Amino acid sequence: MTDFELMRELQQQNTSKIVLLVLDGLGGIPLDPGGHSALEAAKTPNLDRLAGEGTLGQFVSIRPGITPGSGPAHLALFGYDPLEYEAGRGVLEATGIGMEISINDVAARGNFCTLDSSGNISDRRAGRISSEEAIPLVLKLDEIELPDVSLDVRHVREYRFAAVMRGADLNPEIADTDPQTTGVPPLSARADKPTSEKAAEHFNRWIKRAGEALSDEKKANGLTLRGFSSDPRLPQFPEIYGLRSACIAVYPMYRGVSRLVGMDVIPFDGDTPEEEFVAAANHWDAFDFFFIHIKKTDSSGEDGDIIKKAKVIEVVDKALPALLNLNPDVLAVTGDHSTPAKLKTHSWHPVPFLLWAPDTVRVDSQDTFGERSCQSGGLGTFPATDIMPLLMAHAKRLRKFGA
Amino acid sequence: MTDFELMRELQQQNTSKIVLLVLDGLGGIPLDPGGHSALEAAKTPNLDRLAGEGTLGQFVSIRPGITPGSGPAHLALFGYDPLEYEAGRGVLEATGIGMEISINDVAARGNFCTLDSSGNISDRRAGRISSEEAIPLVLKLDEIELPDVSLDVRHVREYRFAAVMRGADLNPEIADTDPQTTGVPPLSARADKPTSEKAAEHFNRWIKRAGEALSDEKKANGLTLRGFSSDPRLPQFPEIYGLRSACIAVYPMYRGVSRLVGMDVIPFDGDTPEEEFVAAANHWDAFDFFFIHIKKTDSSGEDGDIIKKAKVIEVVDKALPALLNLNPDVLAVTGDHSTPAKLKTHSWHPVPFLLWAPDTVRVDSQDTFGERSCQSGGLGTFPATDIMPLLMAHAKRLRKFGA
Repeated sequence: MTDFELMRELQQQNTSKIVLLVLDGLGGIPLDPGGHSALEAAKTPNLDRLAGEGTLGQFVSIRPGITPGSGPAHLALFGYDPLEYEAGRGVLEATGIGMEISINDVAARGNFCTLDSSGNISDRRAGRISSEEAIPLVLKLDEIELPDVSLDVRHVREYRFAAVMRGADLNPEIADTDPQTTGVPPLSARADKPTSEKAAEHFNRWIKRAGEALSDEKKANGLTLRGFSSDPRLPQFPEIYGLRSACIAVYPMYRGVSRLVGMDVIPFDGDTPEEEFVAAANHWDAFDFFFIHIKKTDSSGEDGDIIKKAKVIEVVDKALPALLNLNPDVLAVTGDHSTPAKLKTHSWHPVPFLLWAPDTVRVDSQDTFGERSCQSGGLGTFPATDIMPLLMAHAKRLRKFGA
Repeated sequence: MTDFELMRELQQQNTSKIVLLVLDGLGGIPLDPGGHSALEAAKTPNLDRLAGEGTLGQFVSIRPGITPGSGPAHLALFGYDPLEYEAGRGVLEATGIGMEISINDVAARGNFCTLDSSGNISDRRAGRISSEEAIPLVLKLDEIELPDVSLDVRHVREYRFAAVMRGADLNPEIADTDPQTTGVPPLSARADKPTSEKAAEHFNRWIKRAGEALSDEKKANGLTLRGFSSDPRLPQFPEIYGLRSACIAVYPMYRGVSRLVGMDVIPFDGDTPEEEFVAAANHWDAFDFFFIHIKKTDSSGEDGDIIKKAKVIEVVDKALPALLNLNPDVLAVTGDHSTPAKLKTHSWHPVPFLLWAPDTVRVDSQDTFGERSCQSGGLGTFPATDIMPLLMAHAKRLRKFGA
């Protein structure tokens, strides 16, 4: 029996509410030996209280030593082993902004870039042009017409867009055209498998037309495409767990992965933790499970700014009472992976995990929320795919296995 | 290579003795935040001394978040992944009282119940009639003769009996006739699969005849059947581990699962821990491995009686020197699952585990036996199926793997 079959078999309905609060890239390491991580340094009276009343642990997102991308990390949080279930970055980005991906469609993430007079990339992000500058260019790209296929292009944010190609016999095994460096031209779309050659040719034709359309631009006179992918047709989260499930996230990627697993994406105004918690409150009765995503812990970690990362955590802590006032039965506070400011990038370090469930939790000996207290927490070290069964159990939503 | 193949390949013989002492439903949680579990509250000088001299840990019975029934929990203790190996409750009960189950036989657990004048169940346990009252009724049921099949009926205890149907082409995929509630009549035996329809029809014929035989009774004028099942033909424990293996248990279910995996069930007088330890002493030379089962920790947990549960643990602790005087080489003290008095039912919480093996153990930093000390124990958090390899290793009964 697979783990999903076990969940389908044992799930039972009740009125309990589960909140999975994900501070992206939460885990870290100190800048210096003997120092504190951002989470340890942050003043978090509310989280520390929850740690004292709940239990801690740390989870491994994919496998020990493996640094996850955001897509796989979130699939793992939701119970999908990322080595078994894959969702391409292009699909995640396109789905995240509400684009429909059907069978045979191929989606890609696009970046505007700056090309010098020799056609080499001088800026991989086109001087980080604003959304205002980018939107008219995206509309130009969307107007390009090709024989045999159509290409929908939509703006994501700043210099980023998503492109979805629709047609017959298209396959997504195509290598990124982003060379990941400057001083060289963008690569052409190359098929990794013979079955993807047709789609690669269509994309190359489109890239040529797009280059012509952008040729008069100063900053955004070129583009790169990444993460070619198709709908992975994932088993659906609400059905696996029997949970009416909502996603509250500011960034498209996280809405995308939530939509791909079948969650409802709640639209709301604003982008602060408080505003996200208000969105949860406004839809509290309609759902059993809330995935709430906070992005800025990750971005400050990637910027190497440990002080800003600690401040983001403090902002979440301060907003937390609004969430607690909703009386969730089970609240998990965690990350999707670690993003140590010292490393300025995602990392493989286990992710701190806090589980609070006043009716059912076995309280451990820890009373602060940090990497080291989580290492000594009662839940031990466990794979990310154990999270959902643990949340379901503490919400009394799983029947006994066997007599 | 499966884990069992590894055990078969690496096992070696010596004169060491292993005792697995299982306090059913041992794990718990405090009634109130900041309180103690039954195990933490109990005064256990002997267990605490063993904890100091040994090492602690906690195990997950089936999967994180999954609450085990007693059958699967014990299979897991013995090294059988319960998702791979299943034993039905009827077979466990029947085997537990010494009934033979052959291929094609279908076993079920039976309860006497009280029916009102409309035929609806008014008491699912027939007023918990005594064994003295039940035994003559079981004999009546055993006398019923049917065409094509025979049905052996044996008393278990109080209002409970086991029934084994023998015949050709019988299959056990039959739903319980116990509606799990009062005010409605017992259900008929319904086949879950077409191949089980024949057996279901035979059982329904028998149920009708049984109703006639009981019609004059005041309390036990009806019955329900549950856990229809056949011999799962499990790999045999003594052969997998190379251990002459004995079960010492008061309750039939636990004798049943032990017999199904090929252990010898030791008959003995009495039902206290002391009397169980005397039984071990009386058969000490004849076996290498002793599974000793204490039931009342679980029943007091299910009753929500944390004080009684602590007292049962104290009784075991007090009796322990008699077991230690036998000089076991390896002694594990643990549960099969958690049964927190706060939840009044089995739960998914990891199970405290104490391993004592004076010659071979790596002593950890813990010196009391409780849920929180086990969370911080040297063995960490591990699946139940790791227990037998750990016991075998500490008994120096496993050879090196590879050169």
